[in-house]
Amino acid sequence: MTPTAPTPAYRRLGVEERRSQLLDAALSLFAHRAPDEVSLDDVAEAAGVSRPLVYRYFPGGKQQLYEAALRSAADELRDCFDEPREGPLLPRLARALDRYLAFVEGHGTGFSALLQGGSVVETSRTTAIVDGVRRAAAEHILSHLGAAGPGPRLRMTVRMWITAVEAASLIWLDEDRQLPADELRDWLVEQFLAALEVTARRDAETGAVVRALSGDG
Amino acid sequence: MTPTAPTPAYRRLGVEERRSQLLDAALSLFAHRAPDEVSLDDVAEAAGVSRPLVYRYFPGGKQQLYEAALRSAADELRDCFDEPREGPLLPRLARALDRYLAFVEGHGTGFSALLQGGSVVETSRTTAIVDGVRRAAAEHILSHLGAAGPGPRLRMTVRMWITAVEAASLIWLDEDRQLPADELRDWLVEQFLAALEVTARRDAETGAVVRALSGDG
Repeated sequence: MTPTAPTPAYRRLGVEERRSQLLDAALSLFAHRAPDEVSLDDVAEAAGVSRPLVYRYFPGGKQQLYEAALRSAADELRDCFDEPREGPLLPRLARALDRYLAFVEGHGTGFSALLQGGSVVETSRTTAIVDGVRRAAAEHILSHLGAAGPGPRLRMTVRMWITAVEAASLIWLDEDRQLPADELRDWLVEQFLAALEVTARRDAETGAVVRALSGDG
Repeated sequence: MTPTAPTPAYRRLGVEERRSQLLDAALSLFAHRAPDEVSLDDVAEAAGVSRPLVYRYFPGGKQQLYEAALRSAADELRDCFDEPREGPLLPRLARALDRYLAFVEGHGTGFSALLQGGSVVETSRTTAIVDGVRRAAAEHILSHLGAAGPGPRLRMTVRMWITAVEAASLIWLDEDRQLPADELRDWLVEQFLAALEVTARRDAETGAVVRALSGDG
């Protein structure tokens, strides 16, 4: 290592930095191609590094690369939901959805492929990663709603809405984003409120949440 | 073949009849175990037939058995949605949901495992089977609603609700069916109506559907 800054093309990266450079390259490839169609050689080319270097970072091959990319996308997705606990609740949800939809838009095909699982993947492990994101999103929302130890009806409502958001965003991508992102976001927020209102008819806990939501707009 | 009825234990079945007997045996095993844990030998034992016979029907092994079982479950699921076009719309939906929830209850773990995909499966093909059921369900609903060539908002609303129903039923199973099935069914119907009402605020086509639904109760 020299004290002067090396030129970008030959910059030596630390292990974590290099790994994340390779994952970024992989994610941008997954944005246009299915996991099956992305090889470690493609990643080397996209990142401008040698093939042996990519193999050193992902000795498990395609499967390991795919899982690492999925984990990295999962981490990014988790960050989308990380919203400060300030101000009215529904705008917080709207901001989280804006970040989520920007992520979906940015990763395009790769998002669908990563979330739906390609044909090369060992699904039990990748399903667990994706489910982890869904669970994290549900916990974020429930904690913003102030529901510690929520009952089955409230939890089910939140989890159903998260699945519905995921389905909506896959359809949205599939239909070339016909709806503007901000219209989709507002509509998803309204769907959330409506779903909670239906549950509130049978569940006092959800009733309290709905009152809190309509009281702070 | 003799003109007198053979005793059940030694009854000779036609190819289709035998195949469906084996698939029934497989589905009942999948109801208690993940696809990974069901072997062709287990199916032979459960069906009371020889192992070579099962191998003759499923020469592709576990993967072929799994796919055939999934297809058979998919056909059963499609039948759930096949409701006569008579009487008010929401009770039709409620009857379809009753059949669907009975199917979910009857197949238990196997339902989750089949729909979520086990670790042995080649997902692209099995995902296509499951997606086919979702699409068929959406088409059934849209056609009952009288929406030929529905716009993106109405279609998205229906497909989101179908995904949400699927998520709800998996959570329901996972939580040992805490809610009674008829309460879950009513709640899902109410969620459907509420989702349509939200969409109707932005979409005239969905507005007409909501008016038709509330007019025929």
